[in-house]
Amino acid sequence: MYVFITFAPLKFITMKIALAQLNYYIGNFESNAEKIISTARKAKENGADLVVFSELSVCGYCPDGLLYRTDFIDGCNASVEKIIAECADIPIIIGAPLSNVSGKGKQLFNAALFIANGDVKSQCKTVLPDEGVADEHRYFEPSDKFDLINLNGVKIALTVGGDVVDYPMDMLAKLNPDFIVNISAVAYAHDDNHLSDLSQVAKKYGLPLLNVNQVGANTNLIYEGRSIAFNAEGRVIAECKSFEEDLQYVETKSFKSAGEELRKMDTTESIFRAITLGLRDYFSKMNFKTAVLGLSGGIDSAVVLALAVNALGRENVHSILMPTCYSSSHSVDDSLEMLKRTKSSYHIIPIEDLRNAFGTAMAKAFDGTKPGLAEENIQARLRGSILMAYSNKFGNILLNTSNKSEEAVGYSTLYGDMCGSLSLLGDVYKTEVYRLARYINEHCGNIIPQHIIDKAPSAELRPDQKDQDSLPPYDILDGILNCYLENNMTADEIKAKGYDAETVDFVLKLVKRVEYKRFQAPPILKVSSCPFGHSQSVPLVARY
Amino acid sequence: MYVFITFAPLKFITMKIALAQLNYYIGNFESNAEKIISTARKAKENGADLVVFSELSVCGYCPDGLLYRTDFIDGCNASVEKIIAECADIPIIIGAPLSNVSGKGKQLFNAALFIANGDVKSQCKTVLPDEGVADEHRYFEPSDKFDLINLNGVKIALTVGGDVVDYPMDMLAKLNPDFIVNISAVAYAHDDNHLSDLSQVAKKYGLPLLNVNQVGANTNLIYEGRSIAFNAEGRVIAECKSFEEDLQYVETKSFKSAGEELRKMDTTESIFRAITLGLRDYFSKMNFKTAVLGLSGGIDSAVVLALAVNALGRENVHSILMPTCYSSSHSVDDSLEMLKRTKSSYHIIPIEDLRNAFGTAMAKAFDGTKPGLAEENIQARLRGSILMAYSNKFGNILLNTSNKSEEAVGYSTLYGDMCGSLSLLGDVYKTEVYRLARYINEHCGNIIPQHIIDKAPSAELRPDQKDQDSLPPYDILDGILNCYLENNMTADEIKAKGYDAETVDFVLKLVKRVEYKRFQAPPILKVSSCPFGHSQSVPLVARY
Repeated sequence: MYVFITFAPLKFITMKIALAQLNYYIGNFESNAEKIISTARKAKENGADLVVFSELSVCGYCPDGLLYRTDFIDGCNASVEKIIAECADIPIIIGAPLSNVSGKGKQLFNAALFIANGDVKSQCKTVLPDEGVADEHRYFEPSDKFDLINLNGVKIALTVGGDVVDYPMDMLAKLNPDFIVNISAVAYAHDDNHLSDLSQVAKKYGLPLLNVNQVGANTNLIYEGRSIAFNAEGRVIAECKSFEEDLQYVETKSFKSAGEELRKMDTTESIFRAITLGLRDYFSKMNFKTAVLGLSGGIDSAVVLALAVNALGRENVHSILMPTCYSSSHSVDDSLEMLKRTKSSYHIIPIEDLRNAFGTAMAKAFDGTKPGLAEENIQARLRGSILMAYSNKFGNILLNTSNKSEEAVGYSTLYGDMCGSLSLLGDVYKTEVYRLARYINEHCGNIIPQHIIDKAPSAELRPDQKDQDSLPPYDILDGILNCYLENNMTADEIKAKGYDAETVDFVLKLVKRVEYKRFQAPPILKVSSCPFGHSQSVPLVARY
Repeated sequence: MYVFITFAPLKFITMKIALAQLNYYIGNFESNAEKIISTARKAKENGADLVVFSELSVCGYCPDGLLYRTDFIDGCNASVEKIIAECADIPIIIGAPLSNVSGKGKQLFNAALFIANGDVKSQCKTVLPDEGVADEHRYFEPSDKFDLINLNGVKIALTVGGDVVDYPMDMLAKLNPDFIVNISAVAYAHDDNHLSDLSQVAKKYGLPLLNVNQVGANTNLIYEGRSIAFNAEGRVIAECKSFEEDLQYVETKSFKSAGEELRKMDTTESIFRAITLGLRDYFSKMNFKTAVLGLSGGIDSAVVLALAVNALGRENVHSILMPTCYSSSHSVDDSLEMLKRTKSSYHIIPIEDLRNAFGTAMAKAFDGTKPGLAEENIQARLRGSILMAYSNKFGNILLNTSNKSEEAVGYSTLYGDMCGSLSLLGDVYKTEVYRLARYINEHCGNIIPQHIIDKAPSAELRPDQKDQDSLPPYDILDGILNCYLENNMTADEIKAKGYDAETVDFVLKLVKRVEYKRFQAPPILKVSSCPFGHSQSVPLVARY
């Protein structure tokens, strides 16, 4: 009898749990609370017995430094009170910062609040991530209390984020829960495998596992959503959509169903959808409407234009072509062809006269020197200034068009092509940019002219310049970068993989040397496990 | 007899301890090891029985993300081996990352290594700072082992960084040490009071306390040094110099001397010396020699010129004057007068023609619009481009001239006057910039013309523009900013201090709105407890 109750209690048959996967706006307590309350009501109408929201859902994940501000925490607390009052008739689980009243350690916990039958129980996060883009240790005190929550006799192991794959879950498993509910906010990365980890957890403990993840983007971080339910064998029994809000229901009786294997979305499709959501949310949450970009005739700006037109609407994207005497005729022609296909607006602002005027202005200071990198960069900076002038004048937000390969080796001009409010491709290697271009042409209409995809990449800052004059072929470059950045390999380890020793040394030297450029780069939409940005803290002044 | 041994052992009378305050270069293992070894030898020649170096002295504090790289850790370990071999005949204490061989948690400890008589003992840091610019939780596992070290019968409580003011010292105090040695690397802030804290620790436990701090700057972080020894009453019995390398000796017999009160350096002098060291180390460690800056005729660029001439030598600083038709005649005259006084080189590059050429280039795109912010920013960006062109051409490093008040409210142009490799004044409020100017004129020759100090501040981007047309007076602005930033006060709390409500709301709205500009700002020399920069992580997309 005891065994029966533990493994398959009768009460399970009647329980219906809603996985509420919503897009939160950091600090917009009103809209977050409204979403939570209306979703709880909708779920109740549909017969749910419990509605689960994601980690820090009350304030949106992750507010970082705002968590130090008392008025921000006051806002969180008021919002929790409101939600409790409005959801009196339906049990819910929400995520919120919770004051640490012990007087020891950090002032907050990262809590899951279980609100049912007029009572609030909290389970707080123990294993606080502090790697990559996560910095929770700065703001939260790790909890060391482990207990199950109980809903009408059903015992649930409630965990937050990584706790479910770490020792807190070990502790909870000893208390014999009926199943596991985890609330999370996992920043998207195409090489992330947290869903496999969750499947393994379910299998390891022989317990069904429900995970509700945040969806939507906040600045550079994108959340896929894809909230999920596994049976005790770690097979999928329910799943929310990727990259959009969704509300799915899991009935406890389905815990016994066979379930399906965990699927993996095609990488390029997944990156495309992530960037689209990231761009869209950046604009909608910042209340921006229109974008501007510099269209060079190359692959990067073409893909950015395509992504922007797709995410924001063609009427909201303006392109500027800024040719010089070094621009090949096909650069303008290819761009115009693409603009024709996207039916979006543009200006052609040749910078030849400006370039000459700049040369005249600098003539005395540059007297006796030969044209070189300085003159090449002047063109890029004039273009940056034109784009920013347009942005300042009409309120269009400048989209940055640099890719990760360029960012890595500094094949870009600070305050020139590195300008922009948001970088769409700064975490996408050049070889992946080409795959994105082909994906776009297959799935969004054939909007990128084939010649843009086929021609040899060039910055066109001097006569007949080609990227491969200065850099190794992109497949080699990206391979080395991936070893060094994503896989943290040493130069010797990379060489042992078969890459030419001289090329490896050359590439790593560049990567280290241009840290100062990346320091001032725009926010980059993160799509990998190792994006450039403020979270990659490497001292500029260092020998290594 | 027992009491006598515990509180005033005879052996103390003969012990001489060297406080080795050195300037380390992150990752330059060779030069760090050489400094440590030669200093240890020198101290031994001078009769020292123990030489104490600062926290992470082997690799320089703090390597941050480099600590993830195995070749970096290999470099640390090889360097430690070398130091052990070379310092076999003199007991030393050094700081280094130590591998965590437990297989649990982070892979490293932040260790103090006590090397004596052919043996190595480690004491590892327990309380890992993860606020402000410190991020040690990301890289190190907290230790939970507390033990004294023993040198020829003398028992020493050896601690690292904040452990000495926290519970690890409580644990060590129970073991009845004879005195305390702490090794640290405390980033300079004019409002920091860690020395008072250390004095309190000595007093609290009734134990002499020796603290060896790092000196020198690594990118944006400056270390004052000022290593110190307190007697058991918390009074100063020895002290190293501020802002330079130093080697001082403390004899245990001096533990009984009366000591002196802890002094406080004048704030402006201290900021001046900190920035000077920060600038000098940035250049020397990066192997840069010459600087360039835009000299506007205003107070900020004048102070930056003075600081640069003082730190780098007048022959290494080049100024560029870039007047437009909006520049008042005194802007150029005052600048020329200052250049005459500093005897440093310059170019005048008027940007009027360029501004007109830019207007012509944009004419079609801007058709039907009125001149405004876009046109003002164009001037700033043309200046930024000229400065960067000069920098690219001649290798002069561009010094940014923005101050903290401007950075806070966004009274600056991204990619314009926000350009630069290093910001000297980005953590100095405008009111303090004036004090710096007066300090410089008193102590470095009267190099800043009085008119630059006296005139009303202006960006000179449109006719008769004054800063106070757009902003509250700087004493009010800086007062509000200090409440909000350094003291983390809410709007209501700031208003309760007597500031005009509308002004407070206006200022805070600006501060929040321009987070995106600061995201792309250059590294800022930190001189306060709350600098802008990557460590101040506030999401751009947020409502608060």
